[in-house]
Amino acid sequence: MEQPSRIAGTVRPGGRTARVRAAVLEATQDELVEHGFHGLTMDQVAARAGVGKTTVYRRWGSTPGLVADLMTELANQSSPHADTGGIESDLRVNALAVVEALNDGRLGATFQAVIAAATCDEQASLALRTFYLRRIEEWTSVVDLAVARGELPVGTDGGEVIRAIAAPLYYRLMITREPVTAEAAEWSVARTLAAARAGAFVTGALVTGGAPG
Amino acid sequence: MEQPSRIAGTVRPGGRTARVRAAVLEATQDELVEHGFHGLTMDQVAARAGVGKTTVYRRWGSTPGLVADLMTELANQSSPHADTGGIESDLRVNALAVVEALNDGRLGATFQAVIAAATCDEQASLALRTFYLRRIEEWTSVVDLAVARGELPVGTDGGEVIRAIAAPLYYRLMITREPVTAEAAEWSVARTLAAARAGAFVTGALVTGGAPG
Repeated sequence: MEQPSRIAGTVRPGGRTARVRAAVLEATQDELVEHGFHGLTMDQVAARAGVGKTTVYRRWGSTPGLVADLMTELANQSSPHADTGGIESDLRVNALAVVEALNDGRLGATFQAVIAAATCDEQASLALRTFYLRRIEEWTSVVDLAVARGELPVGTDGGEVIRAIAAPLYYRLMITREPVTAEAAEWSVARTLAAARAGAFVTGALVTGGAPG
Repeated sequence: MEQPSRIAGTVRPGGRTARVRAAVLEATQDELVEHGFHGLTMDQVAARAGVGKTTVYRRWGSTPGLVADLMTELANQSSPHADTGGIESDLRVNALAVVEALNDGRLGATFQAVIAAATCDEQASLALRTFYLRRIEEWTSVVDLAVARGELPVGTDGGEVIRAIAAPLYYRLMITREPVTAEAAEWSVARTLAAARAGAFVTGALVTGGAPG
């Protein structure tokens, strides 16, 4: 959510090692966007980055290793959570940032490629989970602050609220393949907040009904 | 949601054409589960189904053609919506059916393979969208019946309620790669219903707040 679309130039300046990493991750993202995870090869990444193959193999090991490091870098560059003073506007910033990222030609394609890779590669799956759990944790505090301000019930599970904001947007992107619009973001905020205000995100509040039927 | 895991034997009996189709779709699903969409080839499907390559090429054209027909068949075999007499238990049947399907080794792997395929193939994307929009439409009537019974506000958007039940489950499966549990299904029902009862699914109810920040 809210990452810059390109890596090169935004990685903090450093020595040769940092420059090599920036070039390799940039090339990895380029290749992912153009060819998907199944079209990603170490040799192509090395050639595109202008870096020796040996270096790429030694340092990243495999294409899932490249993807994992790319996701780490994208997480590092992600913006911190909002703090607008109100839960509705904080969640709106979050939801609209998700919409923006998913509609960004480069970043959205990167996420889709990694989500696809995760279905068949354990290392890509772990990189994806790590990325999203970090982002969820980062944003959980906006819910905790809202609880402290009395905007939401005590015991509201912040991580679940943040997941609930994003879920309908990813569902449209990946499952029903429908457009991910600003309106969908607004609906997600409105529905999640209605449920949260009603206490449906309070830990332990789940009362399971009888058996279906 | 709630499809039988295997196709062979459940396709209605017919002539040779129906038997060939059943064998080919069964082989397509086997190959998808074992090798993913990128490992799917027309020749392997033909060999596995014991059907001539020419027949497979003539009738399905390409691997996305196979995937599209498989999704059509899975949609045809999906069970109709529940009608338990109450919206909470109807939605619970729906949510638990999604959990069951996603955790079914064969069916869950099939969906994940097609979801991954949709990120890089337009025909697979269309097949996926068609499948889910059919399932959403099928289940929308449980919400309409609930509105008619006075359980939910007039104007509640049934399709959006059904999407909201499934979205957190697919989000855990595909994005955060977390387990898709019966408890997650119960939470999804509780939260969606809380929002629906508060009117957050009523068409036109969206009041957009000020600009974020």
